[in-house]
Amino acid sequence: LSETSRVVIKRDPYNAEAPLPALADPITRPASHYVRSNFAVPTLDHAEYALQIDGAVAEPASLSWATLSALPRVDAVMTMECAGNDRLGMRPVPTGEPWDSGAVSTAHWRGVRLRDVLATVTLAHDVTEILATGADSGPRDDALVPGPVTFARALPLAVAQHPDTLLAMEMNGAPLPPEHGAPVRLIVPGWYGMANVKWVVRLSALREAFTGYFHQQRYVYEQAEGVTPVTFARVKSMITAPSEGARLPLVGCTVRGWAWSGTAPIAGVDVAVGGGDAWQPATLGPAPGAHAWTPWWLELPAPPEGRLTLRSRATDADGRRQPETVPWNRLGYGNNAVRPVTVHIGP
Amino acid sequence: LSETSRVVIKRDPYNAEAPLPALADPITRPASHYVRSNFAVPTLDHAEYALQIDGAVAEPASLSWATLSALPRVDAVMTMECAGNDRLGMRPVPTGEPWDSGAVSTAHWRGVRLRDVLATVTLAHDVTEILATGADSGPRDDALVPGPVTFARALPLAVAQHPDTLLAMEMNGAPLPPEHGAPVRLIVPGWYGMANVKWVVRLSALREAFTGYFHQQRYVYEQAEGVTPVTFARVKSMITAPSEGARLPLVGCTVRGWAWSGTAPIAGVDVAVGGGDAWQPATLGPAPGAHAWTPWWLELPAPPEGRLTLRSRATDADGRRQPETVPWNRLGYGNNAVRPVTVHIGP
Repeated sequence: LSETSRVVIKRDPYNAEAPLPALADPITRPASHYVRSNFAVPTLDHAEYALQIDGAVAEPASLSWATLSALPRVDAVMTMECAGNDRLGMRPVPTGEPWDSGAVSTAHWRGVRLRDVLATVTLAHDVTEILATGADSGPRDDALVPGPVTFARALPLAVAQHPDTLLAMEMNGAPLPPEHGAPVRLIVPGWYGMANVKWVVRLSALREAFTGYFHQQRYVYEQAEGVTPVTFARVKSMITAPSEGARLPLVGCTVRGWAWSGTAPIAGVDVAVGGGDAWQPATLGPAPGAHAWTPWWLELPAPPEGRLTLRSRATDADGRRQPETVPWNRLGYGNNAVRPVTVHIGP
Repeated sequence: LSETSRVVIKRDPYNAEAPLPALADPITRPASHYVRSNFAVPTLDHAEYALQIDGAVAEPASLSWATLSALPRVDAVMTMECAGNDRLGMRPVPTGEPWDSGAVSTAHWRGVRLRDVLATVTLAHDVTEILATGADSGPRDDALVPGPVTFARALPLAVAQHPDTLLAMEMNGAPLPPEHGAPVRLIVPGWYGMANVKWVVRLSALREAFTGYFHQQRYVYEQAEGVTPVTFARVKSMITAPSEGARLPLVGCTVRGWAWSGTAPIAGVDVAVGGGDAWQPATLGPAPGAHAWTPWWLELPAPPEGRLTLRSRATDADGRRQPETVPWNRLGYGNNAVRPVTVHIGP
């Protein structure tokens, strides 16, 4: 858990984001990929590992590491964003980890399809959700139910059975590092990070909506109008170059970054040079994977000497557009608002 | 116009803000005091300088530098804030100079009372405003009236005749520097910077409200509900230490800054450590002048390792409290919203 490859948000439990330079690459190095932990990082031994499958199934099962490993392996390059990414940009600043813009990363995951794992048991006909439970737990002062809380998140059955929903065992060609969920973690394309349960030790087939701590008291948009669950990642873009506060020469530069949406491919990115409403279209490059961010860039001709704001906004193929502001919610999730980057142009 | 003592926002015309370290002092050095120029800085010769007084007066007058200098001198330590200060913090980012938080400064001004100057002529009984015209002018693409625009701002007669409204000739014990309005500028306690007309060459007594470019097309809050003039500075505070992005040891530190309000003394400052609503009262020190900012500080005991947000909010003696967010206005004026400062606590 190097000091230099990530920016530590909280030491205990370990929460750290990707430094901006690490986000220049299409695939983030695992040592820089953001890490969100709700509790201390568990250390699980592959040899002793077992995945319990229970709940509304004909017969509970326990899958060893060897059994899991024997299932067909598939790949997914996926951009994952913490639901709390850019919480620091919300006003008032909500409670919760003070994530800046680095709680988003992209990795090449390899593992087995969750549906192949579920196919090793017989699900009841009326199963609606698959609950994934991690090996991480601890106390929570505000828990409605007494005793320690364990990280657990449920997925709708259709999402659990999506061919790209994986139990990942490898990250960028190597076994999962402990902080990324070793030995296995969920990979759920398009959903915010909380759905990608790490250190998965149990899958439970449920007949009704799960109502645990991380569904009811966290990962919900709490607004005056009501409470709604946090699910898919909202359409968003970020500027990776130039960086905030950069001093640039008078000859111009290239503005570049990434754009992503949990629900559709990226259709376009606009860039505004200066305040106001002067948006111009950026060029899009190929995404490094079906569920990964799309690169974009715009050549910026020589601007006048002084301070300059740069903004980007993404639009996805379903017509969803990244907004300039988002409605505030108490726990500070889903901030996909346009974020200005300020640079200094000078000799 | 040193590169290091101010942060240049625009080279031409010259706009520059105070760097945060320069705002640690109660009285800002003139070389670091923010400068807002709408046009090129005029160079006026004291020997040839004359102040015209015209309009609704019994007889127009022209006051030489020597005549002005013979009037009684008075002092005012005043905090001046550009109406566009913190424009960068508004969402969407408005058009206009991209001021960060450094377009506020405090100076020791010395000069003659505007009312003493006005007393050299006989005002008509129905005068309602005093218009101050600067020596600075230039083209404006969006001007409603053809031809060059000259900087000119009117004050209600009562404000013009306030005993602390000055025509300043000295700044921090020396003659006014050119960029601060030499040979004379208006000093209007409590109003945003635009009222403090620089390079004043004409005072005109008016019988009705002035409607020039800098009253109608600038320095107005343009909102969906309507258009209102920008006048007094809103209640506000800023954190001067620690600075954004600072790395702090685990032993704690002192959070400190300034608070000001254009309409009343500061009654209190609260500080929040972390997001959410955990405000605690800061200690207030004495302001360096009746119209100057109030110092405040709070001892911060050793925080846990990681990232920390610090926020301050001021309340004035009239009960006005600095808000967490402000309604957006098209030209980006009056942003007195709480501004978080993020620091890193570590070994």
